[in-house]
Amino acid sequence: MSEFTSTIRTIEWKDTFSRMIDQTKFPEHFEYIDIKTGDSMFDAIRTMIVRGAPAIGIAGAHGIVLYAQEGINQFDNRQDFVNWLIEKAQYMKTSRPTAVNLMWACQKQIDIIKNSTSDKAGIIEELKQNAIKLENEDIEINRKIGDYGAEVVPKGATILTHCNAGALATVGYGTALGVVRSAFAKDNTVQVFADETRPRQQGARITTLELTMDGIPVTLITDGMCSYFMKKGMIDMVCVGADRIAANGDTANKIGTYTVAIAAKYHNIPFYVAAPLSTIDTSIKTGDDIIIEERSHDEVTMINGKPICAKGVNVINPGFDVTPNELITGIITEKGILRPDYRKSIQEVFKN
Amino acid sequence: MSEFTSTIRTIEWKDTFSRMIDQTKFPEHFEYIDIKTGDSMFDAIRTMIVRGAPAIGIAGAHGIVLYAQEGINQFDNRQDFVNWLIEKAQYMKTSRPTAVNLMWACQKQIDIIKNSTSDKAGIIEELKQNAIKLENEDIEINRKIGDYGAEVVPKGATILTHCNAGALATVGYGTALGVVRSAFAKDNTVQVFADETRPRQQGARITTLELTMDGIPVTLITDGMCSYFMKKGMIDMVCVGADRIAANGDTANKIGTYTVAIAAKYHNIPFYVAAPLSTIDTSIKTGDDIIIEERSHDEVTMINGKPICAKGVNVINPGFDVTPNELITGIITEKGILRPDYRKSIQEVFKN
Repeated sequence: MSEFTSTIRTIEWKDTFSRMIDQTKFPEHFEYIDIKTGDSMFDAIRTMIVRGAPAIGIAGAHGIVLYAQEGINQFDNRQDFVNWLIEKAQYMKTSRPTAVNLMWACQKQIDIIKNSTSDKAGIIEELKQNAIKLENEDIEINRKIGDYGAEVVPKGATILTHCNAGALATVGYGTALGVVRSAFAKDNTVQVFADETRPRQQGARITTLELTMDGIPVTLITDGMCSYFMKKGMIDMVCVGADRIAANGDTANKIGTYTVAIAAKYHNIPFYVAAPLSTIDTSIKTGDDIIIEERSHDEVTMINGKPICAKGVNVINPGFDVTPNELITGIITEKGILRPDYRKSIQEVFKN
Repeated sequence: MSEFTSTIRTIEWKDTFSRMIDQTKFPEHFEYIDIKTGDSMFDAIRTMIVRGAPAIGIAGAHGIVLYAQEGINQFDNRQDFVNWLIEKAQYMKTSRPTAVNLMWACQKQIDIIKNSTSDKAGIIEELKQNAIKLENEDIEINRKIGDYGAEVVPKGATILTHCNAGALATVGYGTALGVVRSAFAKDNTVQVFADETRPRQQGARITTLELTMDGIPVTLITDGMCSYFMKKGMIDMVCVGADRIAANGDTANKIGTYTVAIAAKYHNIPFYVAAPLSTIDTSIKTGDDIIIEERSHDEVTMINGKPICAKGVNVINPGFDVTPNELITGIITEKGILRPDYRKSIQEVFKN
C-alpha cells in the first residue's frame, strides 16, 4: 500500500452530522460545510456542493442517517418510524436522478432499515456504521487502483489528465489522481498536466486545486494544447477516470477525453483509464449503446455569467464522449490492470 | 467570382480618416471607430482594436496617411516634411513588432514617400491611393482563395474551423471564412462549426459574430468536442487559416489547430489550410524551425478578470502550434490549391 497521505477528505461522517468540502466555491475558496438535516443534504447534492459519483453516493447514505436522527423523536411507534424513513430514503435518491452510485448507496441503507431487528436507536446506529463502511471502502478501492496504476507510471513521468477524477470526486484519494498520488509517493519527480476541460472547467477549477493542496506539481493547459506538448515529448502517459465502461472496454468519460485519446495514439503515448469495477456496466455491449446526455447551452456560451459569443449562435453540448477500446492501453481497477482484449479481460475479472 | 456580399468591412479609408470595427468590444458590442490621428492609430493597433495580420498591415498604411495630413502644415520645407514623415512611419512599424504584414505595408508607404517627386499634398494623395490599393488587393486575394476553396466544399457540408481566419482578421471576406462565404454563395445549406479556441476564444468571440452577421449558420463547440462530432459524421471538412507556412507545407496556426488536424486524420476528414501566398515563408525549411511565441499566463488562468484555477499552478501558454504537412489535404491560395508533395507545389507556385 502506498504511503501517500492526502490532505483532502471530500466527505466524512462526524458522530451526528456530515462534513463536506463545498465545491461550489472553487477555486477562490476551500471551505468545509456541516450538513445537519436530511433536507439540507438533499439540497447539497442537488446544488452540487458535493459532486462526483462516488462522493454523491456517500452523501446520500449520510442524508438518510440525518433523517433517521430527526425522526426518532417524532414517532413513538417503531413501524411508523421505519415507514417514514424508507419514504425519506426513496426521496433522497431523487436529488440527482442520473447518479447511479446515489441509487446504489441509498438502496443499501434502505435494505438495512428493512432488515433490521433493532429498536429505533439501533437502526440509526446500523445506518451510521454502514455509511462509515461505505466511506472506508471507497478510499480502500481508490488506494488499490492507485497502487496498481503506479506500477505503469514511468520514472519522472509527466501524466496528462482530463477533468477531475480525483479525491474531490470520491471520498478521498481519487481514481486517476489516485494513480498520480501513489506514483508520486514512490517518486516525487512525477508531475501532472491538467486539461482545463471546457465547458465546466473541472480540470482548472478542481484538479489544479486538489493537486496544489497535496504538493503535487501541476501545470494547467487548455484543451487544444495536448498534442503540442505530446509532440514535444513532454507527456509520458495519459490517465483519466470514467463515467461508464461497456463490456468491450469502450469508455464514456467527460467530453474531450476522446480527442486526448486520439492525440495520444498519434504520438504513441500510453492512454489509461482508472476506475472501480462498479463503473463497468456489462449489460452494455459497446460504447455505441451508451446514451450521451446533452447539457445546458449556457455552459458553452457563458463564463462567469458573461456571454462569450454572438447571440443566436447554435450550440450542442454533449456532457461526455466515448473513447473506443482500441485507443485504451489499460483499464486500472482495484483488482489489477485490465488489458485488451477487453471483452475477455472484463469477463475474467467478474468471474473471480 | 463569387456573388457573396459580406456586410463586414473591418477597416476602410474614408477620405480623410480611417474607419474600423472596434474588436475589443466583442461579443457584446459591434461598433465602428474613426481614427483621425497617427498616434491614435498607433494605439488602436497596440491595444488590438484592430487585429489579424492583414488588417493590421492596412491599419499601419492608414496611420502613415494620418501622420502626413497632420504634418503638412507643420513644415514649410518639403524635405523637412519627408524626413519627419519617414520617422513617423518607422515608428508605426513598432506598434505590433511581430506582425510581418505591418512591416511590409509600412515599408510600401515609406518607399512611396522616398520615391515621390510630388509636392507635400501630392505625397499625401499618393499614400492614400496606395492604402486604398492595398485594401482592395487584400479583398481580391481573399475572394480568389474563397472561390478556389469553394470547389472542394461538398454539397451541404458542415465545415469545422478553429480561431478566426475571417473578414475580421482581414480587410474583408476572410481566408478560411472566405472559403465558407464562397461555398455558401453557391449552396446555402453549407454551415460552420466553430471551435471556441481557448485561451483567447477568438472562435467564440469573433467567428460566431461575423458568421451570424452574414447569415451563415454557425454552431459553437468547445475545443475538446471536435472528435465527438467527427465520429458522428457531422463534420465534412476542416478549414483553418495560417500564421506562417514553411517551404515543406508545415503550417503554424493558432494553438489547438494541430489537435484538430490529428482528429481529422483519424476520422478521414479532409483538412485544408486557407492562406495568401504571402503567408508562405520559403526561407523556413520545415515547421521545426518556426519559433513558437509564449503568451501571457493570464490568458489561461483568468477569464473575464476572474481566476479559473488554483493559485500557484504552473502554466505554459504557446500561442500557436505547427501542423505537419502529412495532416494537410491542401493549401488553398489565391493561385489555386497546393497539394502534396508541398515542397514541389510550393516551389512551383512561386516560379510562375
